[in-house]
Amino acid sequence: MTNASIITIGDELLIGQVIDTNSAWMAQELNKAGIWVKRRVAVGDSRDEIWRTLDEEAAVSEIILITGGLGPTADDITKPLLCDYFHTRLIVNEDALQNVKYIFETVLQRPMIERNLKQAEVPESCRVIQNKRGTAPGMLFERDGKIFVSMPGVPHEMKGMMTDEVIPFLQQKFKMPFIAHRTLLTAGVGESYLADHIHAFESGLPPAIRLAYLPGYAMVRLRLTGLSDDADLIRRETDVQFSKLKELVKEWMVTDEDVSLQEALGKLLKTKNKTLATAESCTGGYVAHLLTSIPGSSGYFRGGLIPYHNDIKEKVLQVQGDTLSSVGAVSEKTVREMITGALNLFHSDYALATSGIMGPDGGTESKPVGTVWIAAGNRHITETRKLHFRFDRQRNIELTATNVLNLLRKFILSQP
Amino acid sequence: MTNASIITIGDELLIGQVIDTNSAWMAQELNKAGIWVKRRVAVGDSRDEIWRTLDEEAAVSEIILITGGLGPTADDITKPLLCDYFHTRLIVNEDALQNVKYIFETVLQRPMIERNLKQAEVPESCRVIQNKRGTAPGMLFERDGKIFVSMPGVPHEMKGMMTDEVIPFLQQKFKMPFIAHRTLLTAGVGESYLADHIHAFESGLPPAIRLAYLPGYAMVRLRLTGLSDDADLIRRETDVQFSKLKELVKEWMVTDEDVSLQEALGKLLKTKNKTLATAESCTGGYVAHLLTSIPGSSGYFRGGLIPYHNDIKEKVLQVQGDTLSSVGAVSEKTVREMITGALNLFHSDYALATSGIMGPDGGTESKPVGTVWIAAGNRHITETRKLHFRFDRQRNIELTATNVLNLLRKFILSQP
Repeated sequence: MTNASIITIGDELLIGQVIDTNSAWMAQELNKAGIWVKRRVAVGDSRDEIWRTLDEEAAVSEIILITGGLGPTADDITKPLLCDYFHTRLIVNEDALQNVKYIFETVLQRPMIERNLKQAEVPESCRVIQNKRGTAPGMLFERDGKIFVSMPGVPHEMKGMMTDEVIPFLQQKFKMPFIAHRTLLTAGVGESYLADHIHAFESGLPPAIRLAYLPGYAMVRLRLTGLSDDADLIRRETDVQFSKLKELVKEWMVTDEDVSLQEALGKLLKTKNKTLATAESCTGGYVAHLLTSIPGSSGYFRGGLIPYHNDIKEKVLQVQGDTLSSVGAVSEKTVREMITGALNLFHSDYALATSGIMGPDGGTESKPVGTVWIAAGNRHITETRKLHFRFDRQRNIELTATNVLNLLRKFILSQP
Repeated sequence: MTNASIITIGDELLIGQVIDTNSAWMAQELNKAGIWVKRRVAVGDSRDEIWRTLDEEAAVSEIILITGGLGPTADDITKPLLCDYFHTRLIVNEDALQNVKYIFETVLQRPMIERNLKQAEVPESCRVIQNKRGTAPGMLFERDGKIFVSMPGVPHEMKGMMTDEVIPFLQQKFKMPFIAHRTLLTAGVGESYLADHIHAFESGLPPAIRLAYLPGYAMVRLRLTGLSDDADLIRRETDVQFSKLKELVKEWMVTDEDVSLQEALGKLLKTKNKTLATAESCTGGYVAHLLTSIPGSSGYFRGGLIPYHNDIKEKVLQVQGDTLSSVGAVSEKTVREMITGALNLFHSDYALATSGIMGPDGGTESKPVGTVWIAAGNRHITETRKLHFRFDRQRNIELTATNVLNLLRKFILSQP
């Protein structure tokens, strides 16, 4: 298999103010194309460090992808270094210059400064990858059969270059094996338990197919990857194993496609031609955010209310004052009434509701931090569940969101 | 300065299904403690690769921190490798064993399987770091004056170990310089423009103080870092420079503390003893999610509505049917009426509103994808702004959120 190394450049990665999301995306795309990512390395804006890392990675990989170090406030290290590394010099690239001017004059409508024009300079011997989404061009070098590509660190700029030019170039350059992926998503089962449950299946897999566990919040994704030069054969074989796997985990399976829980729920609602509304207290809009992040969600998502204060629960959602004063907002009765209120307010077919104590403060002896009630229902039936979490606020919000989305999904499936 | 390398282990990082948030957090904490992170490397579950990476990093850093490779479904590579690397053998650690049993019996209340018990095995020569939040213990090794620490990859488990034991141990072991950080956040100004604007200031900084640019969505964070053995001196000197910097960027400064825009807004509302409500169409709950992610936000956030469909805007928020049919939902008039509706519905002092076309579909010639109206107001005045974005849905949602939070912040500041 062809190996790639990903090098990310920038002091900001080493002081930890920036989370590197580029590498994960690049790894996914390379993997889909049949390229194995061998290492990912982050280094600072230091000439010696970058040079040493280029040497090290070129020793183990055929493809070396570099992001970052090209921004207007970067310390002008990367481009001069690449010139020295590949024994060439900086020249102005006319297309890149036109692009910089176009972006400032037409898109940003901001005055251009000297610093911006320098972005059009590139090492003479490289193949320039034009940047349709920003000012810094990409640069591709070939040496001793190895490919080096330097791209800006801005995610959508890098992604555009990878998709439009880099991946197609690499696919032409290297003979790739065919890769078949089949992915399914489970919820409500632990990774260890799952691993034990499918242990015999995993051991019995043919050598060309491997299984990966990809755990997330209250979910585990399972992925089969088949690798072969014979596309038809490996696709067929992976499908056969995937059917066996599906049968083994059907109890917990959310979807047999490579989509998120909220996408699976959206597809289900679309198929059934039904609509949804949300009433979120403790998740504070996060569930609605997950749902509306999906293009086309306006087809089934009618709207949501975040009744953060009890008087809003009472006035807008018609939760009974009695309920709130007797059993409190974090109770089964409240989430049931929130479902009814949401169905009425939004005229939706289904609704979901959350109410809980997310922490770090606000817990009591009978309702400690991490106590959460969730509900999902329609005009006839409402199902509820009590959850207990520990840990931090952000984690509790994410776990509650996963649980309530899955509760609703199962509820919809149970309906005629 | 003492150097550290961070090694993350796991094929999941190389196939890109997991975004590595651990490294950024670790880098931040190490940096605060006066330790410079020299490199971050991600490698797969491969004995050879891990071994080679340990050798490479030990050659450049005094501290080598390893996360991952210890989960119950990891391929049992890391622990045996550490035994060989440090010439020792696996033994059962009694405290770790009690911890595994406690977690399964008391916390998870799930049956324990053989695979779980193996988590209590550790290399004999290591110092065991107990895991209060999970089953896999941490392991600390010393060799030739270098420190190696292996921790699980689960974020809150790793964070607990770092805070409780690893950082205090390292601070005792190595003589650290004193580090003074001062951070401010700007919004509404580009990185290049900012860099040019403060160029003279940056060039004139004393050698012990450096400036870092940390760009985010429509925001740039500026951080001064002073480094010295004399704590009082460097703190004073950094403060002096920070005052100069604040004066230079006051036009765009959101806060002079190391907090997010939503935290700064929350503090402002608390100080003024005012409340807030949200009416989000195109951001779909993301602004409310940002606000409610902050502990204590229930003190000023009354609630939010996501009127995703126009009939909800009309019925629940009292946006005029005329407005929607004449100028449409993505218009200045609509967001103005959404503000009034939100103030009435939630009885809040302030409200914010968003309406736009996030893409990838739904654009028209007069309102292309990326057209967004935002508003912020109180009972007397409403301010609006039209935004134009390109790019993808997720980015448009995040940029809109930043812009509307900042519009509201400025509006509140402008009020008597």
